[in-house]
Amino acid sequence: MDAYEQLAGRFARISVIADATAILDWDTAVMMPDSAGVRRAEQSAALRGVTHQMMVAPDMGDLLAQANADAARLDAWQTANLVEMTRSHAHAIALPQDLVEAFAVASGQCEMVWREARMQSDFRSVRAALGEVLNLQRRVGEAKGAAFGLSTYDALLETHDHGMRGAWLDRVFGELAAELPALIGEALDAQARRPQPLPFAGVYPVEAQRQVGGKLLAALGFDFGRGRFDVSLHPFCGGSPGDVRITTRYDDSEFKGSLMGLLHEGGHALYEQGRPLQWLDQPVGEARGMSLHESQSLLIEHHAGLSIDFLAWLAPVLREAFRASGPEWTPENLFRDFTRVEADFIRVDADEVTYPAHVLLRYELEKALISGDLLIADLPEAFNAKMKQYLGLDVPDDRRGCLQDIHWYGGIWGYFPTYCVGAMIAAQLYGAAGADLPDLGSSLSRGDFSPLREWLATHVHGRASSAPLAEIIADAT
Amino acid sequence: MDAYEQLAGRFARISVIADATAILDWDTAVMMPDSAGVRRAEQSAALRGVTHQMMVAPDMGDLLAQANADAARLDAWQTANLVEMTRSHAHAIALPQDLVEAFAVASGQCEMVWREARMQSDFRSVRAALGEVLNLQRRVGEAKGAAFGLSTYDALLETHDHGMRGAWLDRVFGELAAELPALIGEALDAQARRPQPLPFAGVYPVEAQRQVGGKLLAALGFDFGRGRFDVSLHPFCGGSPGDVRITTRYDDSEFKGSLMGLLHEGGHALYEQGRPLQWLDQPVGEARGMSLHESQSLLIEHHAGLSIDFLAWLAPVLREAFRASGPEWTPENLFRDFTRVEADFIRVDADEVTYPAHVLLRYELEKALISGDLLIADLPEAFNAKMKQYLGLDVPDDRRGCLQDIHWYGGIWGYFPTYCVGAMIAAQLYGAAGADLPDLGSSLSRGDFSPLREWLATHVHGRASSAPLAEIIADAT
Repeated sequence: MDAYEQLAGRFARISVIADATAILDWDTAVMMPDSAGVRRAEQSAALRGVTHQMMVAPDMGDLLAQANADAARLDAWQTANLVEMTRSHAHAIALPQDLVEAFAVASGQCEMVWREARMQSDFRSVRAALGEVLNLQRRVGEAKGAAFGLSTYDALLETHDHGMRGAWLDRVFGELAAELPALIGEALDAQARRPQPLPFAGVYPVEAQRQVGGKLLAALGFDFGRGRFDVSLHPFCGGSPGDVRITTRYDDSEFKGSLMGLLHEGGHALYEQGRPLQWLDQPVGEARGMSLHESQSLLIEHHAGLSIDFLAWLAPVLREAFRASGPEWTPENLFRDFTRVEADFIRVDADEVTYPAHVLLRYELEKALISGDLLIADLPEAFNAKMKQYLGLDVPDDRRGCLQDIHWYGGIWGYFPTYCVGAMIAAQLYGAAGADLPDLGSSLSRGDFSPLREWLATHVHGRASSAPLAEIIADAT
Repeated sequence: MDAYEQLAGRFARISVIADATAILDWDTAVMMPDSAGVRRAEQSAALRGVTHQMMVAPDMGDLLAQANADAARLDAWQTANLVEMTRSHAHAIALPQDLVEAFAVASGQCEMVWREARMQSDFRSVRAALGEVLNLQRRVGEAKGAAFGLSTYDALLETHDHGMRGAWLDRVFGELAAELPALIGEALDAQARRPQPLPFAGVYPVEAQRQVGGKLLAALGFDFGRGRFDVSLHPFCGGSPGDVRITTRYDDSEFKGSLMGLLHEGGHALYEQGRPLQWLDQPVGEARGMSLHESQSLLIEHHAGLSIDFLAWLAPVLREAFRASGPEWTPENLFRDFTRVEADFIRVDADEVTYPAHVLLRYELEKALISGDLLIADLPEAFNAKMKQYLGLDVPDDRRGCLQDIHWYGGIWGYFPTYCVGAMIAAQLYGAAGADLPDLGSSLSRGDFSPLREWLATHVHGRASSAPLAEIIADAT
């Protein structure tokens, strides 16, 4: 067996254990009784330790060197796979095993404390745990930064998206920050001139919402034979490509949140289920970074999902599910209501126009936390000040402020920018798809996502990590 | 760090990964979409491979030898722990890694095929997969047999219960088989002389059954903060001691099955939740073998759960849940109905008197399959012939015959005898508990299991594997 084949075998095994770990993480969020959290964090850390150990095995460097020396024999996908293997290995050897496990334990435990803290809107109770996560996350960034010649924060960005840099984000986000207030103003003005949406004021039973959710995922083309959908505190798409698990959350006083959550996570799920079957257990078969992943969720949620065409299909589905009638249930009114621009507290419920503000402020705050310019103790105040600055809102409690998102507490730093970059990519891709598919609107109005899904499969999902992000986007658009 | 402490650290880590694997196995039975089964079997096998590798690490033998040489320094529990460590290691080194993984993959895949085969009552579709499991299980038994100087089947028994031997079972089961027909006859005669139970003929909605199940587990003292209960095709108790997960199954045409399933698995769960906290991650903290484990489920299900005292508490709970009234809902009628002796097809639904017959026939068949005297292809016919011989029944289809139990398909051989040995231990322990607790009946009639649970905690659960099985039973009785 040559070096490349040996590597493929090892990465396949790493992928099997990583998939098992992902199912365990899903269980943590969806199924686990709370008091099992401490032990669960150890389990998750131990499994991450196992794959890390396999990745940094003493002979891995030699195998990679041999395979790279023999790379002329490989086909295009194998070559790309070897590039990704080499990169994964570089990320792994940058970190000592004890740091990997300590970070996993601290994040797992902090996430459990956060659940309760969020419920109680009590930031103080999670402050110490968050401090520990930040401290270890900074050490991760420093270690990777030293290995790759990057700043600490850039090293964290690099973890989620190869090639993403703070200097580029500063420039792009700077332009955005400069234009955003005017854009929000224009949107609000335009909105004020249009008819106002009729309000929804009923009670929408969870079970009925769940049934609509199932229909919506079926329309999307979610493969229920290779996935599930459930409930969690924070919606996510997890599991493994053969067993993709998405979650949403329900509130019987409104139905938009659960459905938009499912469209968003459903967009992620299509990417995961669309990865090429023959490469699922290899690095090249993985999604091409998290900005592209977020583009897939936002494309489905904001572009296709909020199109008047799709809402023409959704409106009667909702009327039937909620046994509702009346003028507020027209596609046009749903469109006005769902696309309404309004500054509000919760990022995941934000409209397309105010959404970037939520990301910008988190980006600025996490950079300052990582650099040490902002102390954890001052986070709530700083968060609320930015909300005032960007959205003019007075945050009433930390539940609707700095406790709302799982990311920092669960050990995910340098990730927020991908939402905004993803939103930009989504707009580009949806435009290109619309140009390629003249009947896109009419298929969506029949609840048929298959032309869009097939377009995405060809141009994005099926390419996995076989090409750089810029090339995938350029080819598609 | 001395050798014992090093070993304790390694076994703690093995236990963490084994617990993660147990949660994954639960997920396989309760949550996983079917088509993820093949990949899941690989995940489960890879994790078993990881712990096996840790167990057979080259220096483990030396560490055990050093720790055993220094054993005079250890206290009683540490000494017992070292005995169990040494035994676990001996079991692990008896098996080559590739056999461990191949067996795990084959069992996992066969279990998935069995699910469908059972549903369709189609033994042929699972025959090949079962043949592979048997073949590998035989190799496991042969390898352990060679290491321990045991026959192949005794080596499998030893896996579930230290010291259990076929010769002893032949003697005990021989006596039982000789007496059983007469005993069944006597029971049926006595029953014929008593008033016949009034039948239950309603529809019992699953949700109402689930709510009764929750009350029943609460009465039992199941700690919901450290566990869950769900639905699966075959009821089981899984997960880990800090996160014990039991399942049952529902049929809205009768309620006894789901409740008895929960009492049974609840008995297992009390054992798991009652293991000593400070030893949970060490071999000495594990349950003392599977016969004792089965005694705990049968003690709760058949002795306490079917007592007229407990049924006096249950009767009004059922009436309220099913909005039922009428003469069939008295404790006395429940008792007559629940304890009715009647030869039937399904082992897990069998009464106390016919139950041993189900075990005896499986014991004889699996011995013959392991030895090669019986071929897989002939299993349905042989199974049905034994059902006729022991219970006088003509099995109408394999779903109610050799496809009913998960064990053989899931790679659990040499296990069935523990049910019968467990039933004997349960009778002994329940007698002793009754002698020690004069108010046992009145506490059960209030739905209060705590005196019984505390007695079991002291005499069984809390002792874990700190003493041999015979000593635990002798001390308790």
